[in-house]
Amino acid sequence: MKKLIAEFIGTLWLVLGGCGSAVLAAGFPELGIGFVGVSLAFGLTVVTMAYAIGHISGCHLNPAVSIGLWMGGRFDAKDLIPYIIAQVMGGIAGAGILYLIVTNQAGFEGVGGFAANGYGEHSPGGFNMTAALITEIVMTFIFLFVILGSTHSKAPKYLAGLAIGLCLTLIHLISIPVTNTSVNPARSTSQALFAEGGWATGQLWLFWVAPIVGAILAGLAYKFLSPETDD
Amino acid sequence: MKKLIAEFIGTLWLVLGGCGSAVLAAGFPELGIGFVGVSLAFGLTVVTMAYAIGHISGCHLNPAVSIGLWMGGRFDAKDLIPYIIAQVMGGIAGAGILYLIVTNQAGFEGVGGFAANGYGEHSPGGFNMTAALITEIVMTFIFLFVILGSTHSKAPKYLAGLAIGLCLTLIHLISIPVTNTSVNPARSTSQALFAEGGWATGQLWLFWVAPIVGAILAGLAYKFLSPETDD
Amino acid sequence: MKKLIAEFIGTLWLVLGGCGSAVLAAGFPELGIGFVGVSLAFGLTVVTMAYAIGHISGCHLNPAVSIGLWMGGRFDAKDLIPYIIAQVMGGIAGAGILYLIVTNQAGFEGVGGFAANGYGEHSPGGFNMTAALITEIVMTFIFLFVILGSTHSKAPKYLAGLAIGLCLTLIHLISIPVTNTSVNPARSTSQALFAEGGWATGQLWLFWVAPIVGAILAGLAYKFLSPETDD
Amino acid sequence: MKKLIAEFIGTLWLVLGGCGSAVLAAGFPELGIGFVGVSLAFGLTVVTMAYAIGHISGCHLNPAVSIGLWMGGRFDAKDLIPYIIAQVMGGIAGAGILYLIVTNQAGFEGVGGFAANGYGEHSPGGFNMTAALITEIVMTFIFLFVILGSTHSKAPKYLAGLAIGLCLTLIHLISIPVTNTSVNPARSTSQALFAEGGWATGQLWLFWVAPIVGAILAGLAYKFLSPETDD
Repeated sequence: MKKLIAEFIGTLWLVLGGCGSAVLAAGFPELGIGFVGVSLAFGLTVVTMAYAIGHISGCHLNPAVSIGLWMGGRFDAKDLIPYIIAQVMGGIAGAGILYLIVTNQAGFEGVGGFAANGYGEHSPGGFNMTAALITEIVMTFIFLFVILGSTHSKAPKYLAGLAIGLCLTLIHLISIPVTNTSVNPARSTSQALFAEGGWATGQLWLFWVAPIVGAILAGLAYKFLSPETDD
Repeated sequence: MKKLIAEFIGTLWLVLGGCGSAVLAAGFPELGIGFVGVSLAFGLTVVTMAYAIGHISGCHLNPAVSIGLWMGGRFDAKDLIPYIIAQVMGGIAGAGILYLIVTNQAGFEGVGGFAANGYGEHSPGGFNMTAALITEIVMTFIFLFVILGSTHSKAPKYLAGLAIGLCLTLIHLISIPVTNTSVNPARSTSQALFAEGGWATGQLWLFWVAPIVGAILAGLAYKFLSPETDD
Repeated sequence: MKKLIAEFIGTLWLVLGGCGSAVLAAGFPELGIGFVGVSLAFGLTVVTMAYAIGHISGCHLNPAVSIGLWMGGRFDAKDLIPYIIAQVMGGIAGAGILYLIVTNQAGFEGVGGFAANGYGEHSPGGFNMTAALITEIVMTFIFLFVILGSTHSKAPKYLAGLAIGLCLTLIHLISIPVTNTSVNPARSTSQALFAEGGWATGQLWLFWVAPIVGAILAGLAYKFLSPETDD
Repeated sequence: MKKLIAEFIGTLWLVLGGCGSAVLAAGFPELGIGFVGVSLAFGLTVVTMAYAIGHISGCHLNPAVSIGLWMGGRFDAKDLIPYIIAQVMGGIAGAGILYLIVTNQAGFEGVGGFAANGYGEHSPGGFNMTAALITEIVMTFIFLFVILGSTHSKAPKYLAGLAIGLCLTLIHLISIPVTNTSVNPARSTSQALFAEGGWATGQLWLFWVAPIVGAILAGLAYKFLSPETDD
């Protein structure tokens, strides 16, 4: 139960911090934080929680991470569903707090797309579904590959939290123009529920399927590549 | 006494570095550091001091941090008031040095709002008191949650200073648009005393109440969640 | 064989992440990531892979790195050619994925120069061949010097991955204006093959010669400077 | 002798990397790296060299650092002059390489102020001599305070290189507007020799006096504050 509360709080923070940084600074074009700031924010939600709750729940904060770790033989199947539920609920709670803050801004006229993920006309750079699928699969593949590698018993594991968080920053630096970057179905779901116009829930399937496919492939690939002694 | 001097110098640095980066670069819209630079600066004041004085005073630099650590059972009640006094005095000293520098700029015409925190018409993005309260409570809650978690005996504690400092960077990336980001009553007080127009002292109550409420809640929450062996 | 697959995936990531961040965000002048974002992205590809595959293949991701480590007595001559082949193939695979993504963008009209390296009229800042040679030799020299130093047995080697990755970030912060920054023949080759107009393959020789010269000099220099006990 | 060569190369890198990032990217206002990029670059020169040569020479790269460490009882008086000479020569060599690169840019018309430090009309933000003195003294004081604290035997010393480098980043985020940031007489001297118009050598005295005063004060202050067991 403690683990699930930790995952709930951690994913709340991932969504509030990452999506919040994008939504709240959007009105400041000159001084605003841009894609670099949003990329940093997402990565730092993971860095901060890795050291805060890594020793409690493992700090997954993401259904694709839990699935990839399970495929890689690092996570127990019986915990998979509870973790995913806690993550999705945490994400929605984070989005709810963000919604509360945004509605208290002077001149508020609706959240628009919030920080939802999308493709085609809802891709920030106008990338189509094929580009979105490739991008989300490859990005999640590498994300899980880095997670599995940096937490391997032969790696300097105290630094894994930093490497993994900075990997999420890097993934955002690359792929915000394509899909607004998901690699995390809980994050995508949390925003789709609040975004206006209904398109985000219609495109939500891709941001469950692609990250999970990428994560499964990474679990299999790393199992093959990893040195023999494992913990 | 050494501890109090260390807290004084550390909080001086937090205010001079964090608020100073905002105030001094404000005149350079093109090349200036923007919200990302200010966020980095605040975080790095904590990273640098964590490794410099962490082994002397614990490097709180913030009344809300001292109170949250006390609630979480990590800090002695008898040191609470002296720490808070040293932090507020250090913050004011940092603001004083910044004031001296700024008054020696060509064409100086007053410090305006300095880097004071505010809500309503004094929120950078026009967020009202409700948004400010929610933001400051939640941000300080997570800040203390990360501090308590990353300094737990089961966490890789040598990296706590980095995780905590980067958490403050993240908090600024998110919440500068809302309140100019406080989560630290000493930082808010130091700026309110120098800001022109009197509004900053009038709104100062919120930047004591909200961070302390968030810190107390985090102390209680982490106590419940933390693994049993503690140091 | 596992080592070569690891180098392949790692160099794929270096090119997809580093060059991809530049190419994909290029259409967002206001919010885009600029040179700082691209510099961060290149560095983080190395940071993330260092912790993911450092314990598998050593995480070279770069023919110049393999050659410099060999000159410095840290890498076996018999592995040199296989590593370089895996790196070049990985780089091309990364460029291929990036090409696939880019061709699925609305309004796609060709990749232009992709993220190819160049000098003279193809230098971002109009620097000539002499400037390019000096820059690439000196930058690769320091890159290998930092790699050899930070992985020395007397250095805190768990932090080498961070120091080396951030060195690549720094090298980009300095030299993007001069050559678009190579210091890595595999990265340059991968982009030259896709860039339009043929100039990039014509200038490719410099981005093999200069990094290798710099790496050899660094191997010799560090051998002379290094403390006696080595691993 | 190895130590002096290491200091030479390290300071060469500090100047080439830090000042070079500023000078080379100056022509790219939109995509350029701005103050944040330059701040990062200076800090990363120290981070990278700390892990590369920290175990050879201690990685001072700065006469003020050597003097502050000597005052703090951590550095031998007999090595002081040789270190300072190696640092100044290294800085000049770095500036020379940068000069060579810049003169090979299309449309080169002179280096202007290079990246020299200045006050009054040569302060980026128009800050006078008093502001420059206060700023350089206080910034160098904190820089040495962080160096002395983070390398203390009770601090997690493997992270000192990161904390110290990021401190230099922070110092630049704050004080580029005031003096273009020195805190390092070798860095200032290297630029003054190449800057056009002669003003930079005329103002150079301040960038020797103020950093050394700040460093001496920090050495004394930390000696008083530091925990008893020291190495």
